[in-house]
Formats: sequence, C-alpha cells, structure tokens
Amino acid sequence: MTELVAALSRALGPQGVLTSSLELAAYSRDATAGFAQLPAAVVFPADTGQVAAVVRICRELRVPIVPRGGGTSLSGGAVPVSGAVVLSLQKFDQILEIDAQNLTIFVEPGVITERIDATAAEHGLFYPPDPGSIKTSTIGGNVASNAGGLRGLKYGVTRDYVLALEVVLPSGEIAWLGSKCRKDAAGYSMRDLFIGSEGTLGIVTKILLKLLPRPAAKATVLATFPDLEHAAAAVSAIIAARLNPCTLEFLDQATLRCVEAQLHLGLPVEAGALLLMESDGHAAVVSEEAAQMAAFARAHGALEVREAQNAAEADQLSAARRQAYPALAQAWPSAILEDVTVPRSELAAMVRFIEATTRSHGVTCATFGHAGDGNFHPTYLTDERDAEAMKKVKAASREIALEAMRRGGTITGEHGVGLAKKSYLPLQRDAASFALLKQIKRAIDPENLLNPGKIFDL
Amino acid sequence: MTELVAALSRALGPQGVLTSSLELAAYSRDATAGFAQLPAAVVFPADTGQVAAVVRICRELRVPIVPRGGGTSLSGGAVPVSGAVVLSLQKFDQILEIDAQNLTIFVEPGVITERIDATAAEHGLFYPPDPGSIKTSTIGGNVASNAGGLRGLKYGVTRDYVLALEVVLPSGEIAWLGSKCRKDAAGYSMRDLFIGSEGTLGIVTKILLKLLPRPAAKATVLATFPDLEHAAAAVSAIIAARLNPCTLEFLDQATLRCVEAQLHLGLPVEAGALLLMESDGHAAVVSEEAAQMAAFARAHGALEVREAQNAAEADQLSAARRQAYPALAQAWPSAILEDVTVPRSELAAMVRFIEATTRSHGVTCATFGHAGDGNFHPTYLTDERDAEAMKKVKAASREIALEAMRRGGTITGEHGVGLAKKSYLPLQRDAASFALLKQIKRAIDPENLLNPGKIFDL
Repeated sequence: MTELVAALSRALGPQGVLTSSLELAAYSRDATAGFAQLPAAVVFPADTGQVAAVVRICRELRVPIVPRGGGTSLSGGAVPVSGAVVLSLQKFDQILEIDAQNLTIFVEPGVITERIDATAAEHGLFYPPDPGSIKTSTIGGNVASNAGGLRGLKYGVTRDYVLALEVVLPSGEIAWLGSKCRKDAAGYSMRDLFIGSEGTLGIVTKILLKLLPRPAAKATVLATFPDLEHAAAAVSAIIAARLNPCTLEFLDQATLRCVEAQLHLGLPVEAGALLLMESDGHAAVVSEEAAQMAAFARAHGALEVREAQNAAEADQLSAARRQAYPALAQAWPSAILEDVTVPRSELAAMVRFIEATTRSHGVTCATFGHAGDGNFHPTYLTDERDAEAMKKVKAASREIALEAMRRGGTITGEHGVGLAKKSYLPLQRDAASFALLKQIKRAIDPENLLNPGKIFDL
Repeated sequence: MTELVAALSRALGPQGVLTSSLELAAYSRDATAGFAQLPAAVVFPADTGQVAAVVRICRELRVPIVPRGGGTSLSGGAVPVSGAVVLSLQKFDQILEIDAQNLTIFVEPGVITERIDATAAEHGLFYPPDPGSIKTSTIGGNVASNAGGLRGLKYGVTRDYVLALEVVLPSGEIAWLGSKCRKDAAGYSMRDLFIGSEGTLGIVTKILLKLLPRPAAKATVLATFPDLEHAAAAVSAIIAARLNPCTLEFLDQATLRCVEAQLHLGLPVEAGALLLMESDGHAAVVSEEAAQMAAFARAHGALEVREAQNAAEADQLSAARRQAYPALAQAWPSAILEDVTVPRSELAAMVRFIEATTRSHGVTCATFGHAGDGNFHPTYLTDERDAEAMKKVKAASREIALEAMRRGGTITGEHGVGLAKKSYLPLQRDAASFALLKQIKRAIDPENLLNPGKIFDL
C-alpha cells in the first residue's frame, strides 16, 4: 500500500478508498469521448471534514485532486490526470433544508439536479436550470461548470440561482461564500468566482440555491420548417414581438431524422428544421403566448404546427428535443458535442457555416440546441477509436470555434472548457484577460493541486 | 507644477486635470456623511486609452487612483485617500449601441442609469435595476457597487444584467471580460469578480448590459398598517401565495411622517407602517396580482388600501417610497443610511431590534426599504459635525450590523463596503473567506494602486 493510500484509508476508512484497477477504470473518464486516464485512487468522503482531510493529505504528498460529481461532463472536466486522487462527492446526497419563506433550498453537491426541482415543486417553488443531463448530473457539477439548459433565455443558468457555497480550499481551509440574502454587496463575489471554476479553485461541499414561485401553467408548441432559415426567422419574429418564452429549441434535419428513427414520434423527416417552443407562467399569458408563437411559425413558412393539448402530449413533443443527444449517442459509436454559442442573431449563419465546414472535412454532423440564447450543439458522429476520423473532427472543431469567436461568440456556453476546449481559450480571450485567469489560480491554488490542467495550463 | 500634474497634463491636456483646492473640494467626498479627503488632482480622461495612460503615470509615480462615477456612494466608496488622483468617468457618457435583436445595450460607464432604461424603453425593452439614485448615479458606479434597487425580489440586481465589461487593469492593460452571449462558460467569470469590486481591481470603461422585454402593464397599490408586524405578515402572505410582485417596499412611522410633512400626499400619519406594492407584466396578471395583494393587505389589518387608477396616481403613490431618502436628508443636517440585509423572514424582528437599539443609544432613526428582499435602510438622523452624536451613531450601527450577521444577514445589500462598513467585514466573513479577498487583490493589484483602503486594508 502506498503512503498515499495508507493516509487516505486512515482518514476515510478502507471503504472510503478505491484502488483496484478494475474499480478505477470507471473513474478514468467522463461523458466526453476521446479522453481517459486511470487515477491513482478514488475517495468517497462523507462530510466536509473528510474532504478537508483528503485535501491536506494530497497537499502534503503533492498529489493532484480531481473532484467528481455525476461524471457527465462533456468537456473532459472530470477526467483524471496521471497519479491523481479522484474525489467523488457521491456521498454528499442530502437536501439539507428547504426554506419556503425565503424561497431557498440548501443542498449537498452530490444531489441529482432533477431532485432539486422536484423538491421545490412540493412547495410550489421552481428551480429553473435544466441541463440536458438533469436526470444524471449533480448540482455540484452544475455549479462547477455553470451548467445551462433549455430555459436559458428566460431564466438564465446555474449561476443565476446560487446564493452561497461552502468550499474546501486548496489549503484545506473551509470557506463560506455568500449568504441567504437576495442582495449582498459585502466584498468581491467569491461565490461567483468559484461558480464555473471547474473544480480548479476549491471543492464545493454545500450549496444554497434561490428558488422562484412555480409557474402555474405551461404550453408546448412544436413546428417543423422547410429549412433552418425559416425557423430562425420565426425565432427572430418571436423575440422582436417581445414575447418571453421559456424554451426555443431547434433540431436540424440530421438530428430530427435520427430522433424519428429511434422514437417514432411521427415527425416529418422531410422537414429541414424543427422548433420546440414553450411558454410558462400565468395561464392567460401562456395560452396567449403559445398562440402567438404558433402564428409566427405559420407566418414564417412552417410545414406543420402542433400544440400540445395536455401534459402527456407536451411530454411527447418535448421528447423530440430532450432525446436528441441520447438518440444520436445511441446511433453512433461516439457522439462528440460542441457547445459553441453566438449572439442569437448569428445563429442561422453559424449553423450554415457548421454544415459547410463539416461537409468539407468529411465529418458527419447533426446540430441541435437553444435557438433562444444562441447556444447550440453541433454533434460529430464518429468513432473515437478511429484516429483518422478524430483528426478530421478536430480540424472541423477548430474552424468552428474560430468562426464562433469571429461572430462575437464563445467556445463554450454551458459545458465548460475542461480539456476539450483548452487550446481555444487563449484565442478567445485577450492577453490581459487570459493572464487574469492564471493570476487567480496561482493566488488561490499556488501548488496547482486542484484539477490541474483543466481550463488552461499554468 | 508637480511631476504628477505635469505628466497628467501632457497625457490629457491641461483641461483634463483639476488641481485648484476649490475645484478639488467638490471631489473630496461622495454622498456619505462623515468622510472627506482632498485629492491631489482630479482627471477627466475621454477614452480608454487616456484611462490607461493615467494608470501608467500613477503606477510609475506610486500615486493611488480613486475612480469616480456620479459620486452618489453611500459607503464612502468614492472618497479619495490623501495624495490620490480622482479619475472621473464623467466624459464616458455615450450609449454606444442598442441591439434590439439580441436584447443588449452597450454603454460607457458615465451614463446616468435612468437614461439606460429610457433608451431601452424606446425599443420595447427594459433595464430593471433601479437604485434609489437612478436619476444621478452612473452605470459605472452601479457596476462597481453591484447596486440594487426596488425591483430586487423579482428582477435581481446590477450583476444580473451585466454581460461584459471592458476594464483597465492596474498594469495599464485593457481587458475584455465576458461576451454578448447569454451563456458563456469559458473560464472563470472575471466579469463577476469586477462587478462589486468598488474600483479596487480595475477601472470599468465599457459595459454591455442585458435587457428584458418591457412589461406591458403595471399596477401600484399602497397600504398603511397599524404597525410593522401587520405589514410584515401581509408580505409573508404574498410570498407564501407565490405571487411575484416587482416591488414590496415599506416605510416605518418615522419615515412616513417625514415624507408626509414634506410632500403632503395625504398619508395617515397615525399609521405605524406603509407598504408600497407593485406588480408588472401582462395586463391580466397584473390586475389579478394587484387585487390579491390588496386583499392580503386588508386581511392583515391594513388601515387603508389605495389602488392607483392611472399612471399619475401610481407615480403619486410610489413617490411616498421614492422620496423617503430625499425627505429625510432634507429634514436633518445629516441622514446616514444603513444598508443591512437579512433573509426576508427576519425583517420584522430586525426592524424591532433597530428601533430598540437606536432608542437605547439616543439616536433618532427612520427606517424604510425593500421588504421583499430583506434589504432595508435604517437612517440615522443626526449632524455629522457633532462628534458626540456621531459616536452614538457608530455604537448603534455596530450593534445593528452584528445583529444582522447573527440573523444570517449581510452588512451591505446594495451600497457596498467602501469605508463605512470596512470594520465589519472581517466579522461577517470567516477567516478563509476574508483572506481570499486579499489574495485576489494582491494578485491583480500588487501595488495597491486602485482605490486603496476600500473594502479592506491590505
């Protein structure tokens, strides 16, 4: 037994540490194709004190720590580095408090995100962020990557709902960042610094979230169009009319066909694009807004418009979008998701660029995503074991990232930088802004102990 | 002419630099009673390049820089330190772009906040943050202090609307932080670090803000109650019913009497508390929500409930709250605003504590604020030239700050720490969290050049 494993076992008990290569293999990768590395050990601390103990041990022995939630990262954020200890937050699965008076919920980071909204719903409350991985990702991982979701345009992202965090710092100290107050201007927002820091600055051990009153009603409308330009024009018209839908999602033809082949929803496979539009809020507003969206879709050449008449129908319509990634992932050995984001007005042009670029590189690509907020997911359908194919994917990905930047966009809207987007980050940020990231990392984690090599290399 | 003034005059032209003590006096303080210091010079750069030039000169000569917007800080955030150059952003008064497709507005930091919403309104759009100082404070100052306002409960604060910032760093380099994308997960959110940093990390020179569709309708209801407990119970009932009003503001009796004495609105001066309740959004929702709020007020013992029948009446009712601070400030030599914030459920108990504490210290106090988000402003009515009276104010203020912390609150909800709250900050933050602030400051401004001594001492 190595000195490291002995020390970890003393701190957590032998059940708290995995070291056999068979067990480690499950923690060698996350949901990102093309990245894998066996760690030295996996630990399962049960409370904040044990997290701090692991940090102190690793610091003493100069062993890197890779925090891990649900392992659903699509940017390689939870992939270990060689020799690292993977710190799983799996045992941190308690909802600690729901405060219906102050509209907050206090949770541990290992809670599955879907459970948070389900618990809020019991009190007439609402946790809006709904990443595609909502059934499997943890709230800790959502905080680490500032996860988004389908309701971004109206409701924002994870950051917009975090009031406070408990974090274990690289020093092993425990810090509370934020408060239960809706307004708090007491010093730099360290909470916001840790949100989206991908486990490189500290390990989040408790999370206080803000909730909203639950919308009373919801309407779901699905429309298909001859091509993406018509769908984009309908979206623009909806925005220009100052509607405020909670969901405006699109699928391109390749995604639509893959979804239809697997789910048999009766979607018209000859359609060039699909839009899923949802409105939530007061019943009167929702029915009015849904009718307006349907009218805009028709006015912009929709082939077909379906309005859900009840919750079951709404679920079926939204499945077309919700199942896009699972359908693609099941149909191909590897489905590699991009996460490019552009100002919404650039969406149609950007999708056309992606189509042309992937075609010229001989890469099969299906695109879907959030038309409302300009965040979308070109998905390369390939086989990560095929080196030649992966080379083509990389070349196409780089051109797409550069084009997104030229259009005022970002290389990642909601998945984080991790390993997958690391080489693009210096191209997106100006020199002074990029240097700031490293200054911050060095100030807080001078020994580069926490998730080293993610976001940037020091 | 000193070396400093000579260098500044070369960079900005002689018109860009003030040095006569008469002129400097106007920049020796902000809106905070009890703090004043003449600077060495005041400069008025006209563009980002000139700001960078000033920073480089001051860095070379080791002269501190105090950035200044509208000078409306209520925490001493814009008060100079001895020997400092005050850098006024007054010439940065342009609205650079309104992008109605992407719902953004791009502005210079010296723009008065009210102008931003007025410009948005011309395009059917809405900039929600509305600090009390909206007619005089600048958006740069709002960003520096993460200003709040009356719509916090429903719409959040300045931070929630900032997409990107251009900043001049203490090195003189220029950095762009953020993007026009609604979702951006590319690296640490340096934008959020600079929001609320009170000019201690960099000088904001451009601001990209997010806008919302403008609410179609608004309703205003004013209710008076025998005492604050009844008003607080009405607020709790409104929250428990999952209504989502945009404004829930209260005045205590002292504030109400002062407002009535000056504005003659016909308010019942025997009332113990006043609530201003506003709903905005779709017309159907607004009238329903206003009726429900009025009903809750009556059910909880309201003495009188008035519903505005038109915009002029709404303005008159909201004047009762909007004019609270001006009315108090006009009636007394010095009106010193606290900015304590507690979780909303603690509001009534906290106000009672404030009444008892100020009474026991012999301090006259009037309290008003944001009942919806627990952020409120006990205002000490005194004379800053009276050392004995100021000593009493300080003693009461400290007890109130400590009590807010005990109740899970914060020493400042929306005014910032500045000088006024500096001594309390280490009491609110745990040691590790407080140390983080200094680590960040040292990493970004190692020479302590920018607004030194604000928030904390290094």
